[in-house]
Amino acid sequence: MENGKPVKIVLPEIKDPILIEGYPGIGLVGHIAANFLAKELGMEMVGYVESPFIPPMALILEGKPNPPLRFYGKDNIILAVADIYVPPTLVSEIAKELVRYLKDMNAAKVISLGGIGIGLFKEKMDVWGVGAREELNKELENFGVKILQYGSIMGMSGKLLWEASKEGLDAYVLLGETFGDRPDPRAAANVVEVLKKLTPIEVSTEPLIKEAEMIEEQLRKMHEQMEQARRKTEKQYESIYL
Amino acid sequence: MENGKPVKIVLPEIKDPILIEGYPGIGLVGHIAANFLAKELGMEMVGYVESPFIPPMALILEGKPNPPLRFYGKDNIILAVADIYVPPTLVSEIAKELVRYLKDMNAAKVISLGGIGIGLFKEKMDVWGVGAREELNKELENFGVKILQYGSIMGMSGKLLWEASKEGLDAYVLLGETFGDRPDPRAAANVVEVLKKLTPIEVSTEPLIKEAEMIEEQLRKMHEQMEQARRKTEKQYESIYL
Amino acid sequence: MENGKPVKIVLPEIKDPILIEGYPGIGLVGHIAANFLAKELGMEMVGYVESPFIPPMALILEGKPNPPLRFYGKDNIILAVADIYVPPTLVSEIAKELVRYLKDMNAAKVISLGGIGIGLFKEKMDVWGVGAREELNKELENFGVKILQYGSIMGMSGKLLWEASKEGLDAYVLLGETFGDRPDPRAAANVVEVLKKLTPIEVSTEPLIKEAEMIEEQLRKMHEQMEQARRKTEKQYESIYL
Amino acid sequence: MENGKPVKIVLPEIKDPILIEGYPGIGLVGHIAANFLAKELGMEMVGYVESPFIPPMALILEGKPNPPLRFYGKDNIILAVADIYVPPTLVSEIAKELVRYLKDMNAAKVISLGGIGIGLFKEKMDVWGVGAREELNKELENFGVKILQYGSIMGMSGKLLWEASKEGLDAYVLLGETFGDRPDPRAAANVVEVLKKLTPIEVSTEPLIKEAEMIEEQLRKMHEQMEQARRKTEKQYESIYL
Amino acid sequence: MENGKPVKIVLPEIKDPILIEGYPGIGLVGHIAANFLAKELGMEMVGYVESPFIPPMALILEGKPNPPLRFYGKDNIILAVADIYVPPTLVSEIAKELVRYLKDMNAAKVISLGGIGIGLFKEKMDVWGVGAREELNKELENFGVKILQYGSIMGMSGKLLWEASKEGLDAYVLLGETFGDRPDPRAAANVVEVLKKLTPIEVSTEPLIKEAEMIEEQLRKMHEQMEQARRKTEKQYESIYL
Repeated sequence: MENGKPVKIVLPEIKDPILIEGYPGIGLVGHIAANFLAKELGMEMVGYVESPFIPPMALILEGKPNPPLRFYGKDNIILAVADIYVPPTLVSEIAKELVRYLKDMNAAKVISLGGIGIGLFKEKMDVWGVGAREELNKELENFGVKILQYGSIMGMSGKLLWEASKEGLDAYVLLGETFGDRPDPRAAANVVEVLKKLTPIEVSTEPLIKEAEMIEEQLRKMHEQMEQARRKTEKQYESIYL
Repeated sequence: MENGKPVKIVLPEIKDPILIEGYPGIGLVGHIAANFLAKELGMEMVGYVESPFIPPMALILEGKPNPPLRFYGKDNIILAVADIYVPPTLVSEIAKELVRYLKDMNAAKVISLGGIGIGLFKEKMDVWGVGAREELNKELENFGVKILQYGSIMGMSGKLLWEASKEGLDAYVLLGETFGDRPDPRAAANVVEVLKKLTPIEVSTEPLIKEAEMIEEQLRKMHEQMEQARRKTEKQYESIYL
Repeated sequence: MENGKPVKIVLPEIKDPILIEGYPGIGLVGHIAANFLAKELGMEMVGYVESPFIPPMALILEGKPNPPLRFYGKDNIILAVADIYVPPTLVSEIAKELVRYLKDMNAAKVISLGGIGIGLFKEKMDVWGVGAREELNKELENFGVKILQYGSIMGMSGKLLWEASKEGLDAYVLLGETFGDRPDPRAAANVVEVLKKLTPIEVSTEPLIKEAEMIEEQLRKMHEQMEQARRKTEKQYESIYL
Repeated sequence: MENGKPVKIVLPEIKDPILIEGYPGIGLVGHIAANFLAKELGMEMVGYVESPFIPPMALILEGKPNPPLRFYGKDNIILAVADIYVPPTLVSEIAKELVRYLKDMNAAKVISLGGIGIGLFKEKMDVWGVGAREELNKELENFGVKILQYGSIMGMSGKLLWEASKEGLDAYVLLGETFGDRPDPRAAANVVEVLKKLTPIEVSTEPLIKEAEMIEEQLRKMHEQMEQARRKTEKQYESIYL
Repeated sequence: MENGKPVKIVLPEIKDPILIEGYPGIGLVGHIAANFLAKELGMEMVGYVESPFIPPMALILEGKPNPPLRFYGKDNIILAVADIYVPPTLVSEIAKELVRYLKDMNAAKVISLGGIGIGLFKEKMDVWGVGAREELNKELENFGVKILQYGSIMGMSGKLLWEASKEGLDAYVLLGETFGDRPDPRAAANVVEVLKKLTPIEVSTEPLIKEAEMIEEQLRKMHEQMEQARRKTEKQYESIYL
């Protein structure tokens, strides 16, 4: 890079922005939520991250080339999206450059979306969260979010939370409970529902719920077929040997 | 490097150039097409890429030494060719330096040639493509190219497409359908046929088709011999045991 | 980093400070002791270490985000704490930057807390120590500390001892004897008891002792159950075969 | 290095030099030829390559310390010799620095010596070669050298050929045919015979031929003994079982 | 490091110094000899090597912290000692910085001590050596040292020999013959005896000989016990089966 920095954030001036981050993680919760928002809100690509350490590639979306780490924008909302796994050192540098930009632009809010793997299914899957300050936690609690008191948040969400907190920005992390071993649009919907209370965003999460139901229906059918196959084999076995 | 950059593009001033890139990839489609063009159009080596990260070596072609990453030129056409696998970080740096040069030279077009592995044979193997802008996609569609709506293009072709798009250049990627497990001159011919419509290049792809037929003939013979051997063994087996 | 250094120590001016270091090590003795002190003395986070080589993450403690390498402070006491393993090169750089700060601030004392694995249990587990100068060893001896005459102290404690010694600071390392295969709050308590004599810190180590007793009680129960199970199996075996 | 370069060529001013390179490679052909020339022509060490990436070591030759990458000189002839394997990036940097020096000194010729593995023995083992320009190839052909039309030359010989060609120097590579699995003084002799025609060097290759014959004689004896042992075992076997 | 160098030699001005190097190597000959000299001559630590690539640690010797790479001094004698394995790139940089210092200080002599593994025991284990110039070899020969005519000396001893030779310093390497698989105080004594002739150092090597005899006595006893055990087993075997 010209100035010796390993990453460069290319973004236009967007005053008082709300940044929403949805890099890939457990259950792809943040990734699904962010891509859903970009599409449903009709957001445009407004910027990207440049670095020699990002793999050389173009993502083709709707017949147009895109860089793998990019930003979508509409009004004062900026969405940070990644289509690849980002190595730790790069995460650190991106988070720092991004917070510098957000600070310069007088950011209103910095919200990271992600998942928290719980390894089980519950009737009501909760959303956990934590903010930069006590008051933000209170705000989250009022919106039905369970406050994460102890734990560690790895990757972009954790680093962004800390770096933004350090600079006095209103930073939040929202983590939707998810089983943890598969993409989870329902957890993404849960997280977006909280996001709607934190921001002026208006969107129906119906499509995410439908997608979730479709996936669940497929899994149910697969299980049923396996169960039938098992029973059939058992019967054949019995008819031969008994 | 003197200026601290990991790569240096050495190229003379060529105004309003059309750059055609054919680095190695699936089916060696771009590589075969580019080398075919260099030879058939009687192009001269006009430049090369310098970097301490390129393996130390000389390629001997027609009794003359050549660097592994080089450019051929004729009139305003520049051909980017590589004889080795280029590591990702180097690809990123080369693409950026190259786009800088093309921008300075007011490039007319930037066209990457490559293959797309489909794992099967069809009567008519198509050419897929994508351009930097909607209008370029329309232009490609008119030439019978199938537009890639979603997907990722890795390596030099993807990076060049994105970097050139970003700078407002008219960039295209053309990907010839290929089985994917062998060098494919026929896919190269298909790609060159589209290239001829996009550029003033005039060339017969007959030699590529002949080469393809020769390879196909050899494979057919090999299969026949294996089939005969199999049948013979079967007969012997039968005559002994039945 | 802006100035080309791989680490940056962010700390306010604290005059004539006493630095206590408790990075993770054998038996987590230093880590347990430092976290115990931070909590019992009601210390606030006052600084942190910045580096692109520290994994991107936030530690959530009492519902607030924290960086993994941080400093707690109260009056002139600074506590250096880490929640992750710190790679060797980073340890070297942190130690040097920290000693630079301590020298500038005219540090009164630099005390590293850790464990020394002895692989056995004794009625009285000792605390070993070594200071930057002969007089400091005498001081430690008067406090009942056994002086380490020969050996090597790896990691932050060793590096800090040497770097601080070199700059003429009053540096000490205190190592509590511990079995070595498990977290050991009792060894932490032993080390804190010596620390109280070296500094104006006043604190009861009762909670650490209680925690130790709880762990020991759990281990005892586990052993008993295993012993009972073993005897039961033996008896069954006898009743069958004899 | 003081100037930020990873290698430094230390050589006195030698005007209009002829550089002969014999770094280790297939059959150690270049290495044997170069060391033979240094000794037979009574050349002195006149320079060396410096780099932190060269392993720390001294080569003791005739009771005197030498660096592993060094230059011998006599009149305007410079011999580049290496006693260790040189990693690719270092090769690139050395070649570039060396060509810079040769260009400054107005080099007359740059000749790389090496082997080409053919995996068989022939009555007459040829020498292959290639020059920077068509005229140099003609010159080589007149000396009985077979011209390499297509192929790749790896390592120092290839890189030096290309870098010197690029700067308009008269560069050659000479490759003696060799079986490829053992040091081959006869191939070295063949290469030196061509070198004598290209340069004012006068030397008898008799010692190399004698060394080759000695090695060949030893191999012949070894084979004979193995053959006899095989026959003896066969006979014993027959006398017992038949 | 402040000036961009990977290592820094910290040493006071010592005019016309004699440097003796004893970094760890085969049979720990140099290491044992150097530590023996430091102790017997009552030398003080006078300097050290600083580098972020040296593992973070402190060596505690006689109750005081020491850096792992350090210098002892007395009058104009400087002893270079290491307690850890030093990686190759670091060796190169240390050697160069050290020779720079020695050159500035107008060093009288630079003597490396080490071992040479011979894999056998002889009545008289020799000391091999090599100097920077023919005259130094003659001097060594007069002291009963066998001159190393051909071979390679790896690591600090080899690099120091070459770098010091290059700068016109009187450099020597002394290598005591040793079996090679165990620490060898007797080889260290042999090397020190030569060193005494090369320098004004006066010291009795009696303690080293005693240490050697002790080790040898222990090994002899161990062998005897193993032999007895073997014979006993044989007898029992015979009494049962014969």
